[in-house]
Formats: sequence, structure tokens, C-alpha cells
Amino acid sequence: MADGTYVNPSGEFTRDQNYIATRITADGRDGWPVEPGRYRLVVSRACPWANRSIIVRRLLGLEDVLSMGVAGPTHDKRSWTFDLDPDGRDPVLGIERLQEAFFKRFPGYERGITVPAIVDVPTGQVVTNDFAQITIDLSLEWTAHHRPGAPQLYPEHLREEIDTVNRVVFADVNNGVYRAGFAGTQESYEKAFDRLFGRLDWLSERLERRRYLVGDTITEADVRLFTTLARFDPVYHGHFKCNRSKLTEMPVLWAYARDLFQTPGFGDTTDFDHIKRHYYEVHRDINPTGIVPKGPDLSDWMTPHGRESLGGSPFGEGTPPGPVADGEKVPAAHSPLP
Amino acid sequence: MADGTYVNPSGEFTRDQNYIATRITADGRDGWPVEPGRYRLVVSRACPWANRSIIVRRLLGLEDVLSMGVAGPTHDKRSWTFDLDPDGRDPVLGIERLQEAFFKRFPGYERGITVPAIVDVPTGQVVTNDFAQITIDLSLEWTAHHRPGAPQLYPEHLREEIDTVNRVVFADVNNGVYRAGFAGTQESYEKAFDRLFGRLDWLSERLERRRYLVGDTITEADVRLFTTLARFDPVYHGHFKCNRSKLTEMPVLWAYARDLFQTPGFGDTTDFDHIKRHYYEVHRDINPTGIVPKGPDLSDWMTPHGRESLGGSPFGEGTPPGPVADGEKVPAAHSPLP
Repeated sequence: MADGTYVNPSGEFTRDQNYIATRITADGRDGWPVEPGRYRLVVSRACPWANRSIIVRRLLGLEDVLSMGVAGPTHDKRSWTFDLDPDGRDPVLGIERLQEAFFKRFPGYERGITVPAIVDVPTGQVVTNDFAQITIDLSLEWTAHHRPGAPQLYPEHLREEIDTVNRVVFADVNNGVYRAGFAGTQESYEKAFDRLFGRLDWLSERLERRRYLVGDTITEADVRLFTTLARFDPVYHGHFKCNRSKLTEMPVLWAYARDLFQTPGFGDTTDFDHIKRHYYEVHRDINPTGIVPKGPDLSDWMTPHGRESLGGSPFGEGTPPGPVADGEKVPAAHSPLP
Repeated sequence: MADGTYVNPSGEFTRDQNYIATRITADGRDGWPVEPGRYRLVVSRACPWANRSIIVRRLLGLEDVLSMGVAGPTHDKRSWTFDLDPDGRDPVLGIERLQEAFFKRFPGYERGITVPAIVDVPTGQVVTNDFAQITIDLSLEWTAHHRPGAPQLYPEHLREEIDTVNRVVFADVNNGVYRAGFAGTQESYEKAFDRLFGRLDWLSERLERRRYLVGDTITEADVRLFTTLARFDPVYHGHFKCNRSKLTEMPVLWAYARDLFQTPGFGDTTDFDHIKRHYYEVHRDINPTGIVPKGPDLSDWMTPHGRESLGGSPFGEGTPPGPVADGEKVPAAHSPLP
């Protein structure tokens, strides 16, 4: 996402939650049917909302049917750019800025140019940037193309519980850190801070005796919480002033986050260098110097977490995904993974 | 101190180290002899350099002979103000801004109006703001007025070692955190960061098997390190990006800091509210919103430190100071002390 920052008169950060809601579905009812090789998922590894879709795509084994374009960690006011690609252009879409795909569909599009976005390769038009729907649709609409052994991240019998957890995690945690960091007044900041840590305490309690948030295997709920936890100490703790305690000082959540990090699909899609550079270089309004903190020490992400004893298993009757696809590996220098 | 900030062309923060070097001495050779009741120590509880003088004055029991004026935690570009006093004036000096005492001695004084400063009450003129000399002189020149049982904070036989430790602690730690926080370039920031944590590791090693930095009792060296450590997690970790690890994640230094905090003179002169408000409200160049973090949780400062087993004792053959003088107590809400 690019931060559709808006501070309302009470000083509270409000996220622009209007996304392009067209969906890519198995039946193609919006005009964009699931079709292998037709679409390109555009992400930034920095972005927690985009990181969700990178994880889910990999867990489900969709790499060969849905290609991925990776924008650089920083961007200007209007758009993410493909500055990581050799000539500054996405090799499949042939564009320099994600904005071009939005303009191709909606000339003069004025809302945020956000990732994740899925672009229709033949027309070069963006289809959707509705991050919450994108991962659900990868789970439910792309089933014909899932790898053998792919996990069910949004199984029907747990859907209600997953939705309930996701709602409070979004409001208080995923978006809560932004509400703290972009608060316009001391009062709205403190309100967001209390909600955030109150919810993290609630999550610690919930996860004390169960390995995953809902059911006995990883689900969409874990994916959504994970991408915020991975950014907590490197960014939110200092940059967004979410500093009651570090993730490493909340033992249950820290073990839970390490457990996921060490599960294929999670840690291997996490790029701490992109994460830190994005927030600290882009948000000049709260970090005018653009200097990126050298810490924290990340080596502890690989320490044993001990959560196997709680029962459950990440993939249930399924299997873990294989090695990360060629050309999609997070550079070794950006990750504590061996 | 007010931050005599100067970023040189290489992007490195350089502290203006020119202070008013006149000294108050037992023999009065600079024209200002030690004299009970004649001088007023002006401090801010927020400031680590001023905090040193508050600690030393209390350890030595000089409260009755050298009165203390406390400026508010924030200040504008030019001066600390007495905005905590009921009518905004220091009750003894009768001034609103510390600048007035500097101007009384040097009309149009252009260097930083810094705390700690000692003001000659009869003339209203500042005598000195040379923070490093002030605490040494309290120890060596005011001996006739020390309380019975006052510790020797700068004993002759340890002076050389104390000076050596102080030199590196100043360069890499006390001032090192500012060099990190006010760095003008990524490169100068990372250089300061590495020096800082390299030195903290060196200090951890030094303090692993000895209770205090030099000798078997508290000295000037401990006072100087303590005031930086007390500000580490509340301010320097986030605000100055000194985030390889928190103080609470460096076990030896954390226990050492708690040991001092729980020793009369240290924790009871530490005002975490003033500390946080000062840095986050004053440095708008690195914290434009002025919002003050609600964290960290400070209750752990009172947990057992276990360092008695290393031998030594805070006051050696001396005694601890009595209760904090009336009117000089840090408000309970600003401190984890019981």
C-alpha cells in the first residue's frame, strides 16, 4: 500500500479504504476470469499488506500461474516504481511506475496507487488493489491451480472465526500501528497505543495455549497478523512510537512470530532491508532526515520457539511449499535466514 | 544543556564544547569563592548533563549550601525557562529565563544557554556552565560543606582511571547518542551507532565482574554513565535511533543501571516524564509532530539486580544520603520509585 494518509480534525489517522473492488474469480463474473499466465501480481516486499499476498501465493504454489513484479522499497508521493529492475521497467508489463497500470484503466485515477495490485497483462490495466479480497480470492477462486498439498487458509468451517479475529486484528493491530504513528495529536496517539497493546495482550493470551490463531493449522488470520509482527521491532516500535514493549519482550507473541517466520512462506518472503528503508525513507513527515536505523539485531528470529508442544502443525494434512522460486529469493543480506 | 547542535559538512554532529570556564573554588582564585548560600545551581531534570550535578549535589549533601532552581523540561531556541514555578519566575533569582543570568554577565552572549549553570545570587550573574568541571568542583572544592559520610566521588588514587573511562564514555556514549541522533548522513549515523554499541559492549564486559566502573564504590564515572543509561530506552533507542538493542536487552548494563537507580541519589533524581517531554517536544527537526511516546514500561527499574554478589558497596566507608529534600522530590507519577 502507499499510505493514503489522512488525519481528520480530531487528529486521528483514517485510512482511505476505497480500493478497486473488481475481482478475479473462477467464473469471471466481473470480466476477469482466473486464467494461468494472464495476470501479474505487483508487490513491494516492504509493505505488510502486499507481503500477505506474497505469502499466500507461495503457500498455495501459484508462482507459475500468477507472475510477480516487485517494486522497490521507496516511492514518491504518487506511485511505486520498478526501480529494482535493470532498466527501471517491469519486464512483463513494460512500465516504470505502477501508476501507469491504474491510469490505463482509469485515466487520472486519484486514489492511492497501492500494492498489492493485480494487473491484466494483455491490456496492461490494473484489475484490483483490494488487498483484503486478493488473498481470500487466491485461496478460494484459484483452487484449480493450487499446488498439491496446498493448505486451506480460509476453510469454510473456520471462516466465521477467522473473520472475527481478522476484524479486531485489522482495527487494533494491522492498522493500529499506523493510527499510532500518524496520529496528529497526543491524545489520538495515546488512544491508538492503548488499543494496540491491549489487543496484543489479548492475542498473547489467546496464543498461550494454541499454536495458531484459529484451528490447528496456519490460516489467513496468521498471515495477516504475521506481516505486522515482522515489522514491529524494525519499524513500528521506534518510527510509529509503538514502544510499550518490543515484540521480543512479549514472550508468547515473539515465539508465535518466530514459529511462523521459520515456516516456509513466511520468513523467506520477509525482506527486512526493504521494510526498514520503505518506512524510514518515505515518511519524511515523521522522519525528516530519512536516516534508516541500523538496528535491531535480527539474528534471534532463528532461535528455537518451542511451540511444537502446543500441538497443531502448520500445514495439517497438506505439505509445506518447496524452495523459493528462482528470481524470487530475498537477498541473503536482507534476512536472518541461513 | 541546550543542544548546541552543529552538523558539519561531513554530516557529523559536533558539540559546541565552549563553556564559561570560570570556577567556584575554595580559594576563590577566579573571583568566586565557595560560600554557603551564595550560589544557585540551575538545572533541568530532563538533561543528562544537568542530572549529573543534581546527583552529585545530593550524594555530597550540599542541598543546604547550594540551592537549586529547576527549569521546565522544554525550552525554545534560546533558553531554558522557569515555567514550573508558580509565576514563571525562579523564586530566588527572580528571572523567567536562564538567558537573563547569562546576559547579566555577558550582554548579548551568543553561545548556548545551557544547564547545569551556577548563578551568583547577589549579582544575578552566571558563573559557570562548564558541566564537566561543575561536578568535579562539587567533589573537590566544596569539601568543607560535604555532609558527614559523603562519598569520595573523585578520589585522588583513582583519578587517572576515572579520567580515562570518562573520556571514552563521553566520546562514544554520553555524546555518542547525540552523534547518532543528530547525524546528517546515513554514513555518519552508522559510524556513531557502531562506536556507541562497541563501547557499550566494552562496558558490559568491564562491568561483568565488578560492581562499579572504577574501584569498589560509586564514583564520578558511574554518575556520568548512569544519566545516559537512564535515558536510553525512553529516548535514545527510538528518538536517536540507537536501536541495536534496548538497555533492557543488555543484561550486565541493565543490572548495573538498576543497581544505581535503586541507590539513593540516582533514581530519586531521575524524572522520566521530563526526560521524555524534553527530547520529543524540543527536537522538532527529528520529531516534527512533537508527540511523546507513551512507552516504555518502566516498572522493571525496581526489580532485583543481583549485583551485591560482585562485592563493593555504593558508599564504601561513607553512608547513603537521607531522604530527598522537601520541594525537590520527583513527582511520583514521573518515576517507578515506590
